[in-house]
Amino acid sequence: MINPHRYCVIMCGGVGSRFWPYSRESRPKQFIDFLGTGRTLLQMSYDRILPIVRPENVLVVTNARYLDLIREQLPDVPEDNILLEPARRNTAPCIAWAAYHIAAKDPEASIMVAPSDHLITREALFEESILRGFDFVEHHDALLTLGIKPTRPETGYGYIQVGAPVDGNIFKVKTFTEKPKLELAKVFLETGEFFWNSGIFLWSVKSIIDALKQNAPDLSRSFDEGLDKFGTPAEKQFIVENFPGCISISIDFAVMEKAKNVYVETVDFGWNDLGTWSALYDNSPKNRDANVTQNCTVMAFNATDNIFAVDGEKLVVVYGLKGYIVADAGDVLLICPKSEEQRIKQMVNDVKMTLGDKYL
Amino acid sequence: MINPHRYCVIMCGGVGSRFWPYSRESRPKQFIDFLGTGRTLLQMSYDRILPIVRPENVLVVTNARYLDLIREQLPDVPEDNILLEPARRNTAPCIAWAAYHIAAKDPEASIMVAPSDHLITREALFEESILRGFDFVEHHDALLTLGIKPTRPETGYGYIQVGAPVDGNIFKVKTFTEKPKLELAKVFLETGEFFWNSGIFLWSVKSIIDALKQNAPDLSRSFDEGLDKFGTPAEKQFIVENFPGCISISIDFAVMEKAKNVYVETVDFGWNDLGTWSALYDNSPKNRDANVTQNCTVMAFNATDNIFAVDGEKLVVVYGLKGYIVADAGDVLLICPKSEEQRIKQMVNDVKMTLGDKYL
Repeated sequence: MINPHRYCVIMCGGVGSRFWPYSRESRPKQFIDFLGTGRTLLQMSYDRILPIVRPENVLVVTNARYLDLIREQLPDVPEDNILLEPARRNTAPCIAWAAYHIAAKDPEASIMVAPSDHLITREALFEESILRGFDFVEHHDALLTLGIKPTRPETGYGYIQVGAPVDGNIFKVKTFTEKPKLELAKVFLETGEFFWNSGIFLWSVKSIIDALKQNAPDLSRSFDEGLDKFGTPAEKQFIVENFPGCISISIDFAVMEKAKNVYVETVDFGWNDLGTWSALYDNSPKNRDANVTQNCTVMAFNATDNIFAVDGEKLVVVYGLKGYIVADAGDVLLICPKSEEQRIKQMVNDVKMTLGDKYL
Repeated sequence: MINPHRYCVIMCGGVGSRFWPYSRESRPKQFIDFLGTGRTLLQMSYDRILPIVRPENVLVVTNARYLDLIREQLPDVPEDNILLEPARRNTAPCIAWAAYHIAAKDPEASIMVAPSDHLITREALFEESILRGFDFVEHHDALLTLGIKPTRPETGYGYIQVGAPVDGNIFKVKTFTEKPKLELAKVFLETGEFFWNSGIFLWSVKSIIDALKQNAPDLSRSFDEGLDKFGTPAEKQFIVENFPGCISISIDFAVMEKAKNVYVETVDFGWNDLGTWSALYDNSPKNRDANVTQNCTVMAFNATDNIFAVDGEKLVVVYGLKGYIVADAGDVLLICPKSEEQRIKQMVNDVKMTLGDKYL
């Protein structure tokens, strides 16, 4: 039987600009069948938590413009569970709103917060880890984050250093370190004390609201002012008026790096944040020419180490290309070396400046 | 007034495999708006000869599978003027059939034979040259070929060496040389005596049939057997039964290199056979990054010397690519260095072997 006090908040407001043109502002990464499985990343995130949380306890927080996509892709999520942010304000305001919303409905709630656009390959281990985490936060005043066992000295992630062991694979958090240099990342990997910050959190609704009050009082005050409105028809108008005034800050900066009751559950369930083309390339199955293909048929001649992400039933024939991203989606074709993918953002900006919003 | 004895035979059976996937077996190069002008190469070829030849005297010789494309693109060509080859047999049988077909209708005819997929930019000079050529072959027993003044030591073309001058820019032909090595091509260019073989011919119907009898007697015999059928309803059946048995040979090998009465008119009307991507690249206007774009919008960053041929309203964003062909058409995307374009044919063959005819 599924515990009726358990909730899941799926954060679904990202624009996924790093995967342009495969991912667009009008249809970001989480809304795409990114791996050609027939389900979008959002749908996979939803499917994954259904064994743990009742469908009516799943909330989706997103930007207002994606309402139709949410309805289309998650038809079983009740309309009241779709929280539409009137402005983009990073994760802390998003998480605070969801907490106040749930508290009004169920003061005994425990909450898992999860991104909508990550990949998890070992779902049985995932389920086990989440159940373990819920159990922990239901018995402790704890802010629990999931730390992924690192497999490489990745410089694009945040790292969590474990402190004193508490219970099995749950530890006090010793330090947070954002995006270390490569040398440091290598040391982190060697020590075995550092884990990737997955962006998956668990806590009781009471613990997170208390933590917001202590560590981000301005933010919690904004929401306290509407305390009588959450869970009522007045909530929507209150959010429209007050949410845009919230500080834009991540939950890590606003709460996790300050609070005393922060714990990490170390996990190893085949996680990938699908954050960059190179990360996607590195973590995808490759054919014998070391090419990765997403959704397309590729015939490669003397061409290696490329990633091809092409919409529809397209055949790609390529000769003599090495280490490139080839992304063809709708009305845009992008060709760029993987080693230069940090330039995509600027190129998208140039497209916008030159040709307007049409291709974003 | 247009001379009613003048005819034009447009040869339109090529499959254009070198421009795959931009050109397909189902819609070869001549049927494509290759230069984004709103008219296909075939239509441009047709338009070009209308000031010289009556519409009812224009014949199109093509493969049976392209009948619908011809009807669609050249609605003014009478159905009886579309000669459908039941098999592909190179230019000599094609030209012989057209000659016998026209002879049955008009023994006084003079004929221009022209490819359907070449580009000619200086149409006034073209018209002048063709009128001059018709006039010549109507007063001489002559097989006249048009020789293009060369602009570079091209190794992909045939060359014609001029002999004794006959009249203005018409000369006896001294030699034919197929695709010379680069060193020889450079010498050809320096001497000023060598001209590119354009594949455009003029002759009286009597001269070409006589030349076929003398130089390709097996071929002319095949057609002589149906002499009473040309221009009658029995012609079609005769061709279906006899054409496939003809030798597959070019008119150059079968007749031009053997006959004694071969002449060349040297011309300079902005000709390009659009035979290779590199030739197309070399002869196309370039943007400031030395990229050529066909039918598409390209934003190139640190990318030079490429040719982009992309169907539809597509934006191409490219970083760090040099000297490539990027051809995106329908369900195929091809990426290949210009310097390796001779491999495209083999790649198309591999596609066929691996995936069948679907993408050809």
